[in-house]
Amino acid sequence: MSTKTTKADVVSPNVEELRRQERAAFDDPSGNFIASDRVEGTRVYRPDGERIGRINHFMVNKRSGKAEFAVMSFGGFLGLGDELRPVPWDALEYSNDLGGYVVSADDDTFRNSPFIEGGTAPDWDSSYAQALYGYWRVPF
Amino acid sequence: MSTKTTKADVVSPNVEELRRQERAAFDDPSGNFIASDRVEGTRVYRPDGERIGRINHFMVNKRSGKAEFAVMSFGGFLGLGDELRPVPWDALEYSNDLGGYVVSADDDTFRNSPFIEGGTAPDWDSSYAQALYGYWRVPF
Repeated sequence: MSTKTTKADVVSPNVEELRRQERAAFDDPSGNFIASDRVEGTRVYRPDGERIGRINHFMVNKRSGKAEFAVMSFGGFLGLGDELRPVPWDALEYSNDLGGYVVSADDDTFRNSPFIEGGTAPDWDSSYAQALYGYWRVPF
Repeated sequence: MSTKTTKADVVSPNVEELRRQERAAFDDPSGNFIASDRVEGTRVYRPDGERIGRINHFMVNKRSGKAEFAVMSFGGFLGLGDELRPVPWDALEYSNDLGGYVVSADDDTFRNSPFIEGGTAPDWDSSYAQALYGYWRVPF
């Protein structure tokens, strides 16, 4: 296989325009779908509307295509730092009203939630997933 | 709700380092998960290893978290332009060997595949999904 730059590497301005317009369609809050790069950066709230953080990115099962975890930063909420914290996708509920995701949990659950310690990613395998889902009390 | 800039908006350098290190963990080709922003830009191949395009982004069902479509650009392959073309997630198979996704389809299927015409996004609803999955001959 060739690794040289081909036409496929070149993004034409038209693509940007296409994408901008396409994006607009997804801003319909009643829509069922959201663009992957739109989830990234989406705000996360508590049920009462208190803003608690953002989704940094999320982890997708390579084969099934299921989003398994959102990787969140709480940056300041309850004194939590900027560590990235994996939260099961199923612990997130999308709110059209807030235009973001809602997590229902008590303060201690947020405070003690697993984070990516010292920049070392956990092994993202089934046993980790099970433990994480258990922590957040959502079915795995 | 306040819209002023808060600590949560500030990304510390440490977050970038955390993320860089976290990323490294996902580069293990035997891993089950891939970061959402890693899928974006991933190359797409034919089964014989021919490089045909890239995933621009993908569409996630807001509630189930299932990736439903990859939005691909073929940029040059078979004379296809830079239009964004939605491809059902289930038509993509991840290849550890290639480090990207594989789509098995004949030339005509690629050539005639639906694209986002004139920058107008289709209505991303169930009937569109069904038609698209039908086109690419994967179960909906």
